[in-house]
Amino acid sequence: MAEPLTLYGDPGSGNCLKVKWVAAHLGIPALWRDVDVPGGGTREPAFLALNPAGRVPLLVFPDGETLSESNAIIFHLAEGSVLVPEAARPRARMLQWMFWEQYSHEPYIAVRRYQLHYLKRSPDDLDPKLAERGAAALQLMDGTLERTAFLVGDALTLADVALVAYTRMAHEGGFDLTPYRAIRSWITRVETGLGIGPYA
Amino acid sequence: MAEPLTLYGDPGSGNCLKVKWVAAHLGIPALWRDVDVPGGGTREPAFLALNPAGRVPLLVFPDGETLSESNAIIFHLAEGSVLVPEAARPRARMLQWMFWEQYSHEPYIAVRRYQLHYLKRSPDDLDPKLAERGAAALQLMDGTLERTAFLVGDALTLADVALVAYTRMAHEGGFDLTPYRAIRSWITRVETGLGIGPYA
Repeated sequence: MAEPLTLYGDPGSGNCLKVKWVAAHLGIPALWRDVDVPGGGTREPAFLALNPAGRVPLLVFPDGETLSESNAIIFHLAEGSVLVPEAARPRARMLQWMFWEQYSHEPYIAVRRYQLHYLKRSPDDLDPKLAERGAAALQLMDGTLERTAFLVGDALTLADVALVAYTRMAHEGGFDLTPYRAIRSWITRVETGLGIGPYA
Repeated sequence: MAEPLTLYGDPGSGNCLKVKWVAAHLGIPALWRDVDVPGGGTREPAFLALNPAGRVPLLVFPDGETLSESNAIIFHLAEGSVLVPEAARPRARMLQWMFWEQYSHEPYIAVRRYQLHYLKRSPDDLDPKLAERGAAALQLMDGTLERTAFLVGDALTLADVALVAYTRMAHEGGFDLTPYRAIRSWITRVETGLGIGPYA
């Protein structure tokens, strides 16, 4: 049996959960190591020795090499599996959503959640761009999901994994999902597909 | 002969140049259509009909389907070529750099350049995080490039294409590259590898 991978992550972080879900869904042997980000876990010397950038998620291969960036990790774990389309064009579309997630969704929705939910800041003190651009991202997703069951056609892919992570927690960032009907039913489909429960 | 792709982009944008370079380097037949972003080209009705998000670069397939996100486009164009490592781990490392570029480099270095060079704002009016985080990104790249000729070992990959695009223009964002010796020689190596001249 192959030596398992080690995955370092904070279970409160959507970026980290992506990695945990993909490994579990595909049955990839991996040891999970909790790192408490708000509690300073990524600034501890033992963790910084592994990743000087002080970020999770982090994959550590059995030979000690490391890999960071949540979407690069899940692509690595899932390449050749049902979560990555074989045909070139849907694969490109999947990557389009994954890059869009890190540029146009996470910096607004996840960042606003961190400010409100963890740092307990008042909504009035936040940059209004966070709410505006987060809402624009949800609007764009909702429009796509009115037409197709998943972000890339009718099958669950890494695009859905990447985007469901913070979308299902968006209310903690002050984003009301009530008007986004297509997003809400998609969240349930993705959770069912991944075999994870609803976000409490 | 296959019908060519159409690529819409602004030649002043690093994100757009990535796409142009990869198509040219790999000899992929593609029609280039200039879109003047600072002049409002992405807000014109004809362009918005192609891409309601109003962003370049944009790839349009012969059947009219579109693909956005610069790094998804170059991955699509280059998959199976010398610019994408065949082995799984270097391919994952390449994607790690590409996601890092969009999350930790472009939002500081390209954004600060846009503010200074196009919008002609004063450095004193800018968010100091742009300079701080941009410098941190350059520092991290320089450390890697002191050890290897390219970002993923000793061969040119899409990681270099993605990161050279705005790094070679960083001075227009107020970042002095003089202290980053490894970055400066890497820029020349990448430009030579891609067959493009130095940035004027």
